[in-house]
Amino acid sequence: VAARETQAPAAPHAAGHGGGLRPVSGLLDLLTLESIEEDIFRGESRNVSSVRVFGGQVAAQALVAVGSTVPAGRLVHSLHAYFIRPGDPRLPIVYRADRTRDGRSFSTRRVVAVQRDEVIFSLSASFQDPEKGLEHQSPSALTRDVIIGGPETAARDGDEEWARRRLSFPIEVRWAAAPRGTADPRRYSWFRADGTLPDDPLIHVCALTYASDLGLLASALAPHELAERRGEVMMSSLDHALWFHRPFRADDWLFYANESPIAIGARALSRGEIYDPAGHLVASVMQEGLVRLMGPG
Amino acid sequence: VAARETQAPAAPHAAGHGGGLRPVSGLLDLLTLESIEEDIFRGESRNVSSVRVFGGQVAAQALVAVGSTVPAGRLVHSLHAYFIRPGDPRLPIVYRADRTRDGRSFSTRRVVAVQRDEVIFSLSASFQDPEKGLEHQSPSALTRDVIIGGPETAARDGDEEWARRRLSFPIEVRWAAAPRGTADPRRYSWFRADGTLPDDPLIHVCALTYASDLGLLASALAPHELAERRGEVMMSSLDHALWFHRPFRADDWLFYANESPIAIGARALSRGEIYDPAGHLVASVMQEGLVRLMGPG
Repeated sequence: VAARETQAPAAPHAAGHGGGLRPVSGLLDLLTLESIEEDIFRGESRNVSSVRVFGGQVAAQALVAVGSTVPAGRLVHSLHAYFIRPGDPRLPIVYRADRTRDGRSFSTRRVVAVQRDEVIFSLSASFQDPEKGLEHQSPSALTRDVIIGGPETAARDGDEEWARRRLSFPIEVRWAAAPRGTADPRRYSWFRADGTLPDDPLIHVCALTYASDLGLLASALAPHELAERRGEVMMSSLDHALWFHRPFRADDWLFYANESPIAIGARALSRGEIYDPAGHLVASVMQEGLVRLMGPG
Repeated sequence: VAARETQAPAAPHAAGHGGGLRPVSGLLDLLTLESIEEDIFRGESRNVSSVRVFGGQVAAQALVAVGSTVPAGRLVHSLHAYFIRPGDPRLPIVYRADRTRDGRSFSTRRVVAVQRDEVIFSLSASFQDPEKGLEHQSPSALTRDVIIGGPETAARDGDEEWARRRLSFPIEVRWAAAPRGTADPRRYSWFRADGTLPDDPLIHVCALTYASDLGLLASALAPHELAERRGEVMMSSLDHALWFHRPFRADDWLFYANESPIAIGARALSRGEIYDPAGHLVASVMQEGLVRLMGPG
């Protein structure tokens, strides 16, 4: 643990996992954008063999882009995004940022992601100077029981599909089981960046943004006997919203609880909560996805 | 009930309330925008004596604006908005819509609300051709128990502050109590438009959008002994997101359950679910607000 370059206290569950020195995160490459002109940036994709760009990547890169236009010390507390067209992983993605407003304590930004002169994605985000105020957090006993288990008790790879797919993502994921004897509709996982990240809080937020899109929409399939890998459904993200509540490190383990409260009209809504290992809620997630049932043949 | 001009089945709880013919909703005036030029609209505010424009009004008018630019039959299923500057109720608000994309089954739109050449609000929304698919809805036994009570059992005016404030809004609201013996952190209410609305589904969605901003942020104060009316806190909405799951009428009673899962850093997150009287979830709501504690003196 001592070898990890982190200024935050080490997470209780991090010790003994990954074994000593972790590599610098490969995720950093994705989060490093080329500056083309003021407020114009260019990013590359990782999985150039995929049919389309992973949504979490576009959202994370877009947040890097607008984050670099905000006064120092002002931290992102929310983002709202729409996936508008599928991205082509073989082409670079150009991010055009708009400095909507710099107020006394808040900044608002918007960015569009463009390929072939067409908008594939848009994101708005709000940044705030750190400020103290009202505090509460709803107790979630069910979730707390699973968090206590820690990443040690979680499956390293989950199912075969995931074991294959996870190699494509610069994020480590372990699936956790719901407490025995409960009819818990939520899906639980632990995740962290694939290596050490620099201390800039924006990088950790962008890493979480990337990871938050992993498996979120799949929670909509939990109440049904359906799998995307068997070609029974076609799924794609429609929107993505995130609220960041407090600082955290994305190269320490984070705990992700997600569920789908409703699906109707070929759209499923998914809701996620992301906790640090001490059980503090660090982020809340909402996403709606298109879920089309594929007929046989 | 027979006299109400509705093509939808009458809600079970609607009978006997309002007594016979209801007036045409005053909310309609707010939702009627003047067309200035293609994709440019102008709206007026209602409470010109307020310090700032009610957020639900700007969101509803913005949705009217973009809704009028979408191919017929394509229904709004989500919106994401940021409140950027306070609106001045004495001035008209100009809405500039952008036709982001018309796809095969989805349309995406964006609109900014402008006063004095400054953006006060931005909203993105997505519209979909009706389509069938996967269906589920999480059971919420607690909520169902309160819905069964119906608006008859709910308080007509709630507290004094609300009795005074409600006169400013073209929405009827009745506060419902949580089931006895439960430590339920949620706040419950019934609401409907102040009179009959035309059948256009967009009008009902806009009416719900307006009403969804009423009291939502106040749920953040529930765990605390604080009140805005006593000058102990200053609250303002930062963002607003809505997902519309199925058709509904906003001139029939709708049931609103809301709660605040977390407050920290002078920001509170609120979550809402809106049901029809039969217990079908018709919309989900998320909003973050700035909640500043005001010191004495």
